[in-house]
Amino acid sequence: MKKVIITCALTGSVPSKEKFPALPITVDEIVNDAIAVYEAGAAVVHVHVRDRVTGKNSHDIEQFREIKETLEAKCPDLIVQLSTGGRYDASEEDRDNALRCLPEMASYCPGSSAFPTGAYVNRVEYYTAQAKFMLEHNIKPEIEVFDTNMMSNAINLHKEGLLTGPLYFDFVMGVKNTMPATMSQLGYLLTMLPEGAEWNLAGVAGMQISTILWAMGAGGHVRVGLEDNQYLYKGVKATNVQLVERAVRIAKEVGREVATPDEARIMLGMEPRGMRKTEASDT
Amino acid sequence: MKKVIITCALTGSVPSKEKFPALPITVDEIVNDAIAVYEAGAAVVHVHVRDRVTGKNSHDIEQFREIKETLEAKCPDLIVQLSTGGRYDASEEDRDNALRCLPEMASYCPGSSAFPTGAYVNRVEYYTAQAKFMLEHNIKPEIEVFDTNMMSNAINLHKEGLLTGPLYFDFVMGVKNTMPATMSQLGYLLTMLPEGAEWNLAGVAGMQISTILWAMGAGGHVRVGLEDNQYLYKGVKATNVQLVERAVRIAKEVGREVATPDEARIMLGMEPRGMRKTEASDT
Repeated sequence: MKKVIITCALTGSVPSKEKFPALPITVDEIVNDAIAVYEAGAAVVHVHVRDRVTGKNSHDIEQFREIKETLEAKCPDLIVQLSTGGRYDASEEDRDNALRCLPEMASYCPGSSAFPTGAYVNRVEYYTAQAKFMLEHNIKPEIEVFDTNMMSNAINLHKEGLLTGPLYFDFVMGVKNTMPATMSQLGYLLTMLPEGAEWNLAGVAGMQISTILWAMGAGGHVRVGLEDNQYLYKGVKATNVQLVERAVRIAKEVGREVATPDEARIMLGMEPRGMRKTEASDT
Repeated sequence: MKKVIITCALTGSVPSKEKFPALPITVDEIVNDAIAVYEAGAAVVHVHVRDRVTGKNSHDIEQFREIKETLEAKCPDLIVQLSTGGRYDASEEDRDNALRCLPEMASYCPGSSAFPTGAYVNRVEYYTAQAKFMLEHNIKPEIEVFDTNMMSNAINLHKEGLLTGPLYFDFVMGVKNTMPATMSQLGYLLTMLPEGAEWNLAGVAGMQISTILWAMGAGGHVRVGLEDNQYLYKGVKATNVQLVERAVRIAKEVGREVATPDEARIMLGMEPRGMRKTEASDT
């Protein structure tokens, strides 16, 4: 089976530092955890930032930029994926801060769905403009799938030339009120998968371990990390490194090699490290 | 998640001792491997017998009986499941030898499907009579599912009172020409699963490790063993014990406890050990 790309979602917008002291929320903590999970086997880190004072979710462009630039200097091998996610009614303007930093990869959600407390709204004009920006600036989209419309919309954007292949999907299972977190649902999503596409599976809370197993056994890639799940076992709090280490152990058990960032770049159709062309931009 | 029942399919009808010297084919070898996999964590052994001279598949009632009785004496905790499987055009009469030994559990196939070299035929009258016999003699059927008809037929037999709940299915994936060995297919089978049923997943050859992961992550039980897969990793030949040990390690990683035989009996609605009522029979 193909090599497995491990993504670590370090922080997220929801978990609190008070409840989970191992959660990295400052720029230094996030950079240090990113390097540590890279050394443990992660090829990609998914990055959110937090307000410097309150510790709550933020889209602060300064912190995004500092994390990205520090990691490019200290750990140039690692793929840094900044989040454009939009919980807590963040404005489209704020959510685009992640893209303005011109990361190598960014999460991207071409569609709308239910979410724990209401709707997760992504207007067609908004995600179409994001796709154009990412295409122009050579930012690889990781397509977040909270329900099936995100998948069919991405396939249509690909046909229109706004997303380039191979499409890289992230199926997120277990977020309250989103699509069913079942094997039947995943099986259905896989029937929709376009030729050549790659897929990653993220599971929230208790679903994280199930999704690791399902993806590992079906040729998918895996996302772990404290954003999605804060426990190693029931009642045992985890660190990001421990969650990555467990994914690496399971990969070893089943004979799947763990992809290096450079191998991930090749699988996902990205430019080789250091060869990426971006246009300077301060939009 | 519920405890996981590990079944080890020790021998099968296909693999050859010449190619895989670790394969148990004599009564002594099968008994010894059964005890060893029990000590490693298997709750159930699935037993085939081989011709004493040629080593080819057999339905020899003497060997079935000797294995069953020796294990009942030496390892009374273990659940012994004898195979009624019918490769190689075995006669219905021969296939019923396994049932005549009145094992605690037997594999049972209520339907027909394609098979590697043609069709796997189970006449309605045949599997209906088997169901009646198993019901009368308190033999727990492990319902083999090589395609979807076996599942719907079992559900109908359950409604007719010929199979008692909880139904215990074994989805077998990866046998050439049978149902697709995909997550989508498994997802569909799970949508058909009746309330309260338990399911086991068996994967052939390279599918064994995928099916372990899928079942382990979705609340199913797992079947491993040299009958289905002869390799631990690509090119590395396995023993039955090694295959069980790997399943136990994966269960531990994901926080699923391994069911003892007595716990398996409770989950599958079987009589407690030593309490099973059977009628003497030499039919």
